[in-house]
Amino acid sequence: MKIMIINPNTTASMTEKMAQAARKVAAPGTELIATQPADGPVSIESHFDEAISAIGVLDTIREHQADAYVIACFGDPGLLAARELTAAPVLGIAEAAFHVASMISTRFSVVTTLARTGIIAEHLLDQYGFASHCRKVRATDLPVLALEEDNDSAYEHLYQECLLAQKEDQIGAIVLGCGGMADMAERLTEALGMPVIDGVTAAVKFAEALVGLNCYTSRFGDLAPPPAKPFIGRFEYLSTRA
Amino acid sequence: MKIMIINPNTTASMTEKMAQAARKVAAPGTELIATQPADGPVSIESHFDEAISAIGVLDTIREHQADAYVIACFGDPGLLAARELTAAPVLGIAEAAFHVASMISTRFSVVTTLARTGIIAEHLLDQYGFASHCRKVRATDLPVLALEEDNDSAYEHLYQECLLAQKEDQIGAIVLGCGGMADMAERLTEALGMPVIDGVTAAVKFAEALVGLNCYTSRFGDLAPPPAKPFIGRFEYLSTRA
Amino acid sequence: MKIMIINPNTTASMTEKMAQAARKVAAPGTELIATQPADGPVSIESHFDEAISAIGVLDTIREHQADAYVIACFGDPGLLAARELTAAPVLGIAEAAFHVASMISTRFSVVTTLARTGIIAEHLLDQYGFASHCRKVRATDLPVLALEEDNDSAYEHLYQECLLAQKEDQIGAIVLGCGGMADMAERLTEALGMPVIDGVTAAVKFAEALVGLNCYTSRFGDLAPPPAKPFIGRFEYLSTRA
Amino acid sequence: MKIMIINPNTTASMTEKMAQAARKVAAPGTELIATQPADGPVSIESHFDEAISAIGVLDTIREHQADAYVIACFGDPGLLAARELTAAPVLGIAEAAFHVASMISTRFSVVTTLARTGIIAEHLLDQYGFASHCRKVRATDLPVLALEEDNDSAYEHLYQECLLAQKEDQIGAIVLGCGGMADMAERLTEALGMPVIDGVTAAVKFAEALVGLNCYTSRFGDLAPPPAKPFIGRFEYLSTRA
Amino acid sequence: MKIMIINPNTTASMTEKMAQAARKVAAPGTELIATQPADGPVSIESHFDEAISAIGVLDTIREHQADAYVIACFGDPGLLAARELTAAPVLGIAEAAFHVASMISTRFSVVTTLARTGIIAEHLLDQYGFASHCRKVRATDLPVLALEEDNDSAYEHLYQECLLAQKEDQIGAIVLGCGGMADMAERLTEALGMPVIDGVTAAVKFAEALVGLNCYTSRFGDLAPPPAKPFIGRFEYLSTRA
Amino acid sequence: MKIMIINPNTTASMTEKMAQAARKVAAPGTELIATQPADGPVSIESHFDEAISAIGVLDTIREHQADAYVIACFGDPGLLAARELTAAPVLGIAEAAFHVASMISTRFSVVTTLARTGIIAEHLLDQYGFASHCRKVRATDLPVLALEEDNDSAYEHLYQECLLAQKEDQIGAIVLGCGGMADMAERLTEALGMPVIDGVTAAVKFAEALVGLNCYTSRFGDLAPPPAKPFIGRFEYLSTRA
Repeated sequence: MKIMIINPNTTASMTEKMAQAARKVAAPGTELIATQPADGPVSIESHFDEAISAIGVLDTIREHQADAYVIACFGDPGLLAARELTAAPVLGIAEAAFHVASMISTRFSVVTTLARTGIIAEHLLDQYGFASHCRKVRATDLPVLALEEDNDSAYEHLYQECLLAQKEDQIGAIVLGCGGMADMAERLTEALGMPVIDGVTAAVKFAEALVGLNCYTSRFGDLAPPPAKPFIGRFEYLSTRA
Repeated sequence: MKIMIINPNTTASMTEKMAQAARKVAAPGTELIATQPADGPVSIESHFDEAISAIGVLDTIREHQADAYVIACFGDPGLLAARELTAAPVLGIAEAAFHVASMISTRFSVVTTLARTGIIAEHLLDQYGFASHCRKVRATDLPVLALEEDNDSAYEHLYQECLLAQKEDQIGAIVLGCGGMADMAERLTEALGMPVIDGVTAAVKFAEALVGLNCYTSRFGDLAPPPAKPFIGRFEYLSTRA
Repeated sequence: MKIMIINPNTTASMTEKMAQAARKVAAPGTELIATQPADGPVSIESHFDEAISAIGVLDTIREHQADAYVIACFGDPGLLAARELTAAPVLGIAEAAFHVASMISTRFSVVTTLARTGIIAEHLLDQYGFASHCRKVRATDLPVLALEEDNDSAYEHLYQECLLAQKEDQIGAIVLGCGGMADMAERLTEALGMPVIDGVTAAVKFAEALVGLNCYTSRFGDLAPPPAKPFIGRFEYLSTRA
Repeated sequence: MKIMIINPNTTASMTEKMAQAARKVAAPGTELIATQPADGPVSIESHFDEAISAIGVLDTIREHQADAYVIACFGDPGLLAARELTAAPVLGIAEAAFHVASMISTRFSVVTTLARTGIIAEHLLDQYGFASHCRKVRATDLPVLALEEDNDSAYEHLYQECLLAQKEDQIGAIVLGCGGMADMAERLTEALGMPVIDGVTAAVKFAEALVGLNCYTSRFGDLAPPPAKPFIGRFEYLSTRA
Repeated sequence: MKIMIINPNTTASMTEKMAQAARKVAAPGTELIATQPADGPVSIESHFDEAISAIGVLDTIREHQADAYVIACFGDPGLLAARELTAAPVLGIAEAAFHVASMISTRFSVVTTLARTGIIAEHLLDQYGFASHCRKVRATDLPVLALEEDNDSAYEHLYQECLLAQKEDQIGAIVLGCGGMADMAERLTEALGMPVIDGVTAAVKFAEALVGLNCYTSRFGDLAPPPAKPFIGRFEYLSTRA
Repeated sequence: MKIMIINPNTTASMTEKMAQAARKVAAPGTELIATQPADGPVSIESHFDEAISAIGVLDTIREHQADAYVIACFGDPGLLAARELTAAPVLGIAEAAFHVASMISTRFSVVTTLARTGIIAEHLLDQYGFASHCRKVRATDLPVLALEEDNDSAYEHLYQECLLAQKEDQIGAIVLGCGGMADMAERLTEALGMPVIDGVTAAVKFAEALVGLNCYTSRFGDLAPPPAKPFIGRFEYLSTRA
């Protein structure tokens, strides 16, 4: 079974960090491939960054066969479009983390990077159905790449915000709101004495589960392959014929 | 990894059917144990049956160590209570099926047995957050044990209702609303050309995923072990001391 | 008119306290009978306690004829199952208190015992439709039996939390989140100058109202009597024949 | 105990019909007074009619002391304003009927007069919290006064629509959407074999219940008496001083 | 194009203030007429004041032809009834302000006068669909007429509450919760560096937009003109014939 | 005032059709510019088409100064990202049409092209807050470009579906679910006798309104300009520096 982790931003060190976290939990028979697009932003911290990064995600899926795909940015950029492109299961890491949290706790909080990305998490919580399971979306005001550059300081910020969540939010679990935090979930889980969930590892295990179930993305209805049509200009390579 | 499937009703043939379906999808390293309580109803078709069956589920978890548990009745009887009793992940089959459906389609319908149990599914959809993902809960008016006794006729009823759902509901997937339908999901998936999801197999694979993530049921907050206290009469055996 | 108050826990002193509160408000023609199961937990402070206590509630209803029943624990254990067992109206005390609160205020808060039981209240608010009428579920961290053992200290804790609710929550009323607080509602109402609602008395008066309306629990659809079937083992006594 | 039923329209025969239905269910000690405003529309079939009728309701409450009030039009006109005017409980008949329906069934439908008034019922269901308990708001296209003029034909229309609701809506009870149907609930309940709820009688019994609980409309917060102030012109008589 | 601004309270100075704010933004071809009823409360600070003021609003619309109407009180009194009376667009200022806020921000807060009117804003947010876009309804405890009498002090109170909203609420815009604040939106917008929205000006511009679209209030279905009927007593002048 | 209409697909004839419809309603002082990207799909009929088209929308906004922008595809592709890029108001046509519909009716239906795009409308209805105002999203199964190629036949299909909506959905207005239907709204409005709303014209008039209010897209919080950062590869031109 081949699972492809797609880091939607172009920072290879973050891809590698997420791949390492994923390898620790992957099943023996799982081949993990991690990649990032050749085109796009170095980090994703706005609706704009997300919109651009979706192209890289979709290009990657078109170019690479796999048994399942993981979109490893907490905004799940391009998720529904990706599902149209392939019958292989596609999982977003925000989605996967919310699902896990709802299976082991009744209420959780999200701890993320910049406050401005909180709204993206809120929109996903609404769309996926977890709005009432999430008590609060908390921000650390860490830029995404701070997680790469000064890992210790970033951990400390994250830990302090998680502590606040644990004390104030009446929750049973915490969801980490950035793929770049994948290496910290285990340490935080131990430090806090409560589950702290990383979406990258969660998505990989759910991908294994769906493949193991022979379960594929629905080809019936609104996730069927996009209608064939011409694209022009820079996107001419996306043209399809019926 | 040892996963215990608990059939909350007392009909051993249904347990066996679900175990067979589960074995087909279980990972190589997974040891599957399937059981049903010694005490309780032969099928679960009402709030009353559910309430009684929860006792058998909880007794089973108290008596048997496992790395994860699956509660294999579509009403997920005793689910939150079970999570208080153990740090091992516990999954309900309704819950698991809804999660899978939301990962491979944007909208789904449920096809269940008796119309009266539809309300149980509706309550779970609300509690789990999938109310707006589910277009319709459809009933076949088959009693649960009809699935054991006349499998062919039951399949035909089920197939016809699934066809209606596919034509009328604007959906991408169907969730089967009874553990006793576990042997029919694959055949229906092929016949309809769209994913038909059985919760037993889904729950087993998600249980594997959670165990693989080292993810445990939160011991912090409202799912912590129940406060120690005396029980009296028939339930004295449940007494605990602080 | 005979109304039976069922205390789902096995602590007789709490039954008596609730019966006294109820007698103060019962109509002249109402015969009040208060009882508790012979089997079950001495207090209800977890999903597990609730699941077990439901059996006692259902046994009591099966064994005792009445014109209406009140389930006198704030989690309303076994409520829908109870309604299947009898055409007589059955009211939960959480339910009744929420209904009253919504009739005399636009927004209310709940003040309960242990924080962990808050989630039970939240689930009921969702299911009954009062989620947006409730501003906050507040906990005093009092164990249920502390209400029996040191009533003065318990009152003081409760009063302080109610004061906070009154100051901070922008509410018009408070709902007490435990049947064991039935003796404190009147005193708190006076002390705070705003309605503080006890569910036991509320449920008794609503039971009288429903009986007075000749209104019975629907026998049509999902609350019809449970389908007849065998139960085995310890629960064989519940077997029914069509 | 003195309960005043206020028919918000000016048709005395409808007042009398509702009073008769209420007298059948009132407790021995209850004094029922039924009245209608001297000013306003002869029936209420639009937002406009409702807005005007609210004045009559509020005038009546200001002019008449009672231990509780019932606003006997299914749009509950002036309900929250009425609650500001008096500490005595005030109940709307839509509100009361929805509460009863949710106590004896899990899902219900409303059968009302003109289709255009369905939106008023929908708004109330949302505000009161019963939106997900109501399957469908059904109209008979009967004008309100047709219920006065040709009672037999009106009953037949109503019965046919109730039959449809019973067959198609997966419900356990029906709520009648007009005070003028108060005399038909009992007959329909028998004819259909399921509870058909009239809000007038429901509100009277709930009013008795609230008075019996010594429960008053909150004077704290947003239902406190309106701030004192001058009114001018036709409404000068409403002026108050601090 | 003639747009009529109806101040539902009877305080002419407030009408004039709102008209001035509106004139600043009206298009060249727009004729603005501002008026207030001859009958009603001098300010609107309760459900009761609102109910009475609706009559003045409806009388004004019946008596004056215009191409569009603005109901200039933040509770939007009589809005749906007004829409039944005329095909011309009718806009409430709360409604208009919420719409604007949702077009330029993802989340906003409301800053209003008395805390007791917050519930009116909450009900409108629910009915209009903006409940999840609004983080918080904040009160300044300023009576409405304080905005007329001591404008500087009122501004300062308002500014301080807006500052709190900006710091604490994770919002992108603020909605002012009273028509009497129409003269302060511009100044607050500059002082805070974020959009502060006044509903009066918003409603006027939306009215121009709807008229410019040749868009009229639906005459089909539930907003069709009210059924013809007699009114009696003080309201006889409202009688209509089919 | 310069308003730019951006047709997110690359079909110039559709741009021109939308521009013509917009010019009919634009105010005298409004300069309308309509354009479409040089890169992208010829029509938008899937999540995939939408994701690609967002790039063209964002490029257009970056390259062209205007006082306001209209994104003229019913999926509102790139809307929130666009708002980060400019303080000028940006309106989507789905958004604008829903807002108009909620101002002139209490309930509406959407009539769109392919059934598969219905889910996009549903997601937007949820996000914008209009889910309960919309009775039904109906599809005609017309491909988007059929609206260009055989306009008469397309109109007839559309008309028939609108008729069904009018008869069956208990609505007061219809929203057209594709920018390519902009030329049909007026004719359908007349044919049906109820408002049929086109989002292109609605968005232009709302854009005029927001500009006239001096109202700008919030620069505070989550819609502030995206954090400066490098983009690489094909998207290097998007790089910004702090």
